[in-house]
Amino acid sequence: MRTIAIDAMGGEHAPEAIVEAVLAAKSEMPQTKLILFGDAARLQKLIPATALDGHLEIVGTTEVIQDEDEPVKAIRHKKDASLVVAARYVKAGKADALLSLGNTGALLAASIFIIGRIKGVARPGLMPTLPAQGSTTGFNMIDVGANAQSKPEFLLEWAKMAACYVTEMRGVVKPSVGLLNNGAEFDKGDPTHQTAYQLLKDSELNFVGNVEGNDLLAGKAEVIVTDGFTGNAALKTIEGTAGVLLHQLKAVLLNGTLTTKIGALLVKNALSSLRQTFDTARYGGAVLLGVNAPVVKTHGRSTKRPIYYTLKQLDKMLAKDVIGKFRAQFKQ
Amino acid sequence: MRTIAIDAMGGEHAPEAIVEAVLAAKSEMPQTKLILFGDAARLQKLIPATALDGHLEIVGTTEVIQDEDEPVKAIRHKKDASLVVAARYVKAGKADALLSLGNTGALLAASIFIIGRIKGVARPGLMPTLPAQGSTTGFNMIDVGANAQSKPEFLLEWAKMAACYVTEMRGVVKPSVGLLNNGAEFDKGDPTHQTAYQLLKDSELNFVGNVEGNDLLAGKAEVIVTDGFTGNAALKTIEGTAGVLLHQLKAVLLNGTLTTKIGALLVKNALSSLRQTFDTARYGGAVLLGVNAPVVKTHGRSTKRPIYYTLKQLDKMLAKDVIGKFRAQFKQ
Repeated sequence: MRTIAIDAMGGEHAPEAIVEAVLAAKSEMPQTKLILFGDAARLQKLIPATALDGHLEIVGTTEVIQDEDEPVKAIRHKKDASLVVAARYVKAGKADALLSLGNTGALLAASIFIIGRIKGVARPGLMPTLPAQGSTTGFNMIDVGANAQSKPEFLLEWAKMAACYVTEMRGVVKPSVGLLNNGAEFDKGDPTHQTAYQLLKDSELNFVGNVEGNDLLAGKAEVIVTDGFTGNAALKTIEGTAGVLLHQLKAVLLNGTLTTKIGALLVKNALSSLRQTFDTARYGGAVLLGVNAPVVKTHGRSTKRPIYYTLKQLDKMLAKDVIGKFRAQFKQ
Repeated sequence: MRTIAIDAMGGEHAPEAIVEAVLAAKSEMPQTKLILFGDAARLQKLIPATALDGHLEIVGTTEVIQDEDEPVKAIRHKKDASLVVAARYVKAGKADALLSLGNTGALLAASIFIIGRIKGVARPGLMPTLPAQGSTTGFNMIDVGANAQSKPEFLLEWAKMAACYVTEMRGVVKPSVGLLNNGAEFDKGDPTHQTAYQLLKDSELNFVGNVEGNDLLAGKAEVIVTDGFTGNAALKTIEGTAGVLLHQLKAVLLNGTLTTKIGALLVKNALSSLRQTFDTARYGGAVLLGVNAPVVKTHGRSTKRPIYYTLKQLDKMLAKDVIGKFRAQFKQ
């Protein structure tokens, strides 16, 4: 049976939202076992006793890693933290995948130091699925911040894993791969990006060349590969720009004249379809590619829905044996 | 008399849009002379002979630098290009400022190699003014792509010039300065950003610490300083995200049901006020800070309005002697 380890104590709405999502997903995953790691007393209050069958289990832990904790120190010193114990279950083979909404740095540290890297992968990279214009499955961008400094070879590894992920999970054969750079020409960027360009060009990947910030949501490539520093800035800039725009849109409609307010009521359905296009919840969370198990980080502010979809995403990754396919790619 | 040199041949709507903007701005700048560099015959057809007085002049040139031209080669080989001759006028003291809508790389090359750097400035940086939530004057971000590789000292220089610019041009005393990084804590980022943090912290600037991509349009700082590679990605990501969102908004309203279409008519005014908030035309163009004259690049796709505002911006920079103030900052 596939088993997913869930850090029940991370995120703004923990553990309630996590338990809600788990209870909703459980009935739809008959072949999967879900283990919640966290405050046993609190979790037991939220879960009907009858639900604690062979498919749902609680493992009581006494510590929690906070957002402000220094990641590496936290996983070393808080040995009974929900995240740390969950990662140890994966390492020991008692679970196959890991989900957390908590401190991203601590999740990366726990994944790398406890679960371990795939042999042949130098550095894991973090990859969300984001919305793209005219697409129902979005695009994937890697790395968005697991690495503050990136070497060209890392980018090639990430591109390989991301392309494989997109084929398995989104059903796209030979997905297009673009390199985020500061111009379209082959010689653009700093030496890291110039070398990455050559590595990608010489690979088996369907490399479509350099792309720029304005190409991301336009859906210019199925996979965008980027150094972790730039990818982090690009991801947060997308979130921030969309957030400010939608906020201002709401403000002008709600604070307008009576005519505007009536109009706002009439366009309500159209606007919610717009919101749906840019709703990334259904894509699940950001996957850490390059470690020895499916590991996904979901936004700390997530409520039930995105967590539910992340559980589906992890279950699909296990069903498709995505990690096995990554391992085969990097076998020497 | 202040004199602005204008490359009349760059951009998608050259020279028509440029001439229109020049004719509109001319009457509002009684103390300023405008010189258009380009195809004399074409320009003469667009300009009434009576307008060619002591405040407006045409300098005929026979070559044009194209977008696909390699910048440094282009300014070396196309000696009679509109941009090159305009830059030489500035160098010779026959003009005080330079405006172009053409090849950005060529404008940078012409500014650095022909006009020259301010003594004490290692590398010029490119700085647009962008919209910020709840602000009528926006925020400034530097560097957005003049440098593919940046050293921490460059970031400090850019921050100093940008803060001075914001004080002179936007009237903000001691503007707040944020460093674009991959997290809020002081030790975030790669060594370049960690060192830049310390340099900014130890400076006289009103440094507010690290900011992230989602803080940009939220108006977290008056000045955002960033390495040119990340800044380029962030700028283009803002443009791309806003573009896709506004495009989708238009699509759902125009292709909706009859109810939606009626509603769309009623919210039209409200939506145009939203568009106005994110309209950067009135902020002018991106300034190249660190060269010995005000140099501004306006978007190649600009029509009359943004070019008109860029002329106002350059005229104000000359009136306020912004370059003189930069020089004083870097005097040893």
